[in-house]
Amino acid sequence: MKRIVLFGTGNVATHLFEAYNNSANYKIIQVYNHASTSLQHFKDEVEITTDLDEITPADIYILALKDDILAKVSQKMKETDALVLHTAGAVSIEVLNKFKNHGVFYPLQTFSKHKKVNFTKIPICIETNTIANTIILKELASEISGKVFEISSEQRKSLHVAAVFVSNFVNFLYTEGEKICNNNQVPFEILHPLILETASKAINMGPKDAQTGPAKREDQEVINSHLEFLNEEQQNIYSLLTLSIQNLHGKEL
Amino acid sequence: MKRIVLFGTGNVATHLFEAYNNSANYKIIQVYNHASTSLQHFKDEVEITTDLDEITPADIYILALKDDILAKVSQKMKETDALVLHTAGAVSIEVLNKFKNHGVFYPLQTFSKHKKVNFTKIPICIETNTIANTIILKELASEISGKVFEISSEQRKSLHVAAVFVSNFVNFLYTEGEKICNNNQVPFEILHPLILETASKAINMGPKDAQTGPAKREDQEVINSHLEFLNEEQQNIYSLLTLSIQNLHGKEL
Repeated sequence: MKRIVLFGTGNVATHLFEAYNNSANYKIIQVYNHASTSLQHFKDEVEITTDLDEITPADIYILALKDDILAKVSQKMKETDALVLHTAGAVSIEVLNKFKNHGVFYPLQTFSKHKKVNFTKIPICIETNTIANTIILKELASEISGKVFEISSEQRKSLHVAAVFVSNFVNFLYTEGEKICNNNQVPFEILHPLILETASKAINMGPKDAQTGPAKREDQEVINSHLEFLNEEQQNIYSLLTLSIQNLHGKEL
Repeated sequence: MKRIVLFGTGNVATHLFEAYNNSANYKIIQVYNHASTSLQHFKDEVEITTDLDEITPADIYILALKDDILAKVSQKMKETDALVLHTAGAVSIEVLNKFKNHGVFYPLQTFSKHKKVNFTKIPICIETNTIANTIILKELASEISGKVFEISSEQRKSLHVAAVFVSNFVNFLYTEGEKICNNNQVPFEILHPLILETASKAINMGPKDAQTGPAKREDQEVINSHLEFLNEEQQNIYSLLTLSIQNLHGKEL
């Protein structure tokens, strides 16, 4: 049984806590946070602390902290031989260089605090400073997920950028779609099956082959009639993405 | 038993043919297409024709044709008392004005020829020229789908524009995400669960509440480091969408 101390009480920390709560091979023995309020949620189940000097000895320390707090906390932490991990997509492994054994444990998913997640299908990207640590981390990640990938800091950065495109920006386009529906007294619900099928097709066929629409088929009449329908900000987005689709697919001709 | 003649052999026509094939209340008695090649697929199951003068009398004519062919075919068709419908998202009901009974039967989904669809969950947007025809069309649509909506031509146009945002443009962002992964030797597969969860969250929470990411939290350090990572076209898209997200969510403050 390996002992884990969890740092942080945010979305990732909370979901990790639940994921390892039923494990036979790992036990979270302490949760640290700089503020005590959010620790109350954990206090009936595990030892809690707000003091970095009171961190319990353990085999693994998981720092599930915000990017800016991560560097500060790791600086203040005492030296240890435990494997020290962070969970941040956009932060290099080097931020933990002061620890003899260190690595990254990055679960790639969009977490909401009150929505249960099925960790078994969430990809976990791992990176460590030694082969021995990689073996330890791979075991840790495989305990909760069937999809563990060895990913370097540079690759992780590219994943983080790509995730902004396929998640944050995609979600913004959903928001624009909903706005257009609302402005025309059309229930957004009508678009729900299309949203799900578009995601599913991109995964099954690959997004490049799945591309359809007036931009791809260069249907200028439909494009013009759509532009007339939109406000200036939407027109800018529509024009830029239409042009980019045509640049990408025009090259095939 | 109502008799249907189906015009067209494309994705929508093919899926409609299969959807009504097992119906007890409707029977497709003929399929028309201007070219004979694509009709061969249907010839063992139903009467086929390439001649508009040989259209069989029926109760309902469904014109599942491309936007530009639709007007031409409806002009050439003989007068009829049958209910004449088109399936085009971007075309007004008025294109069928010459027919006494006419309407629109628009299934809102992205169809691929070789991927089976479950019509029961596909929204069908309907519009007709009389209340009596609306009742007939509602029955026809409800035969295959549990989600039938009365939608005007103007509303349908807004849906069509919104669909470009939530499907065509979203798919393009998936393509960019895949490109970034490929350029960095990262399997795009790692992003699949995120893509599905993003779609699912937008549907369950509403996309505006589901927005996350560096743009929303105004994390300029991450934004700058992402921009350095991208080519010029990607930078333009990243900057415009980041600004739009900040315009939308900044207003809340």
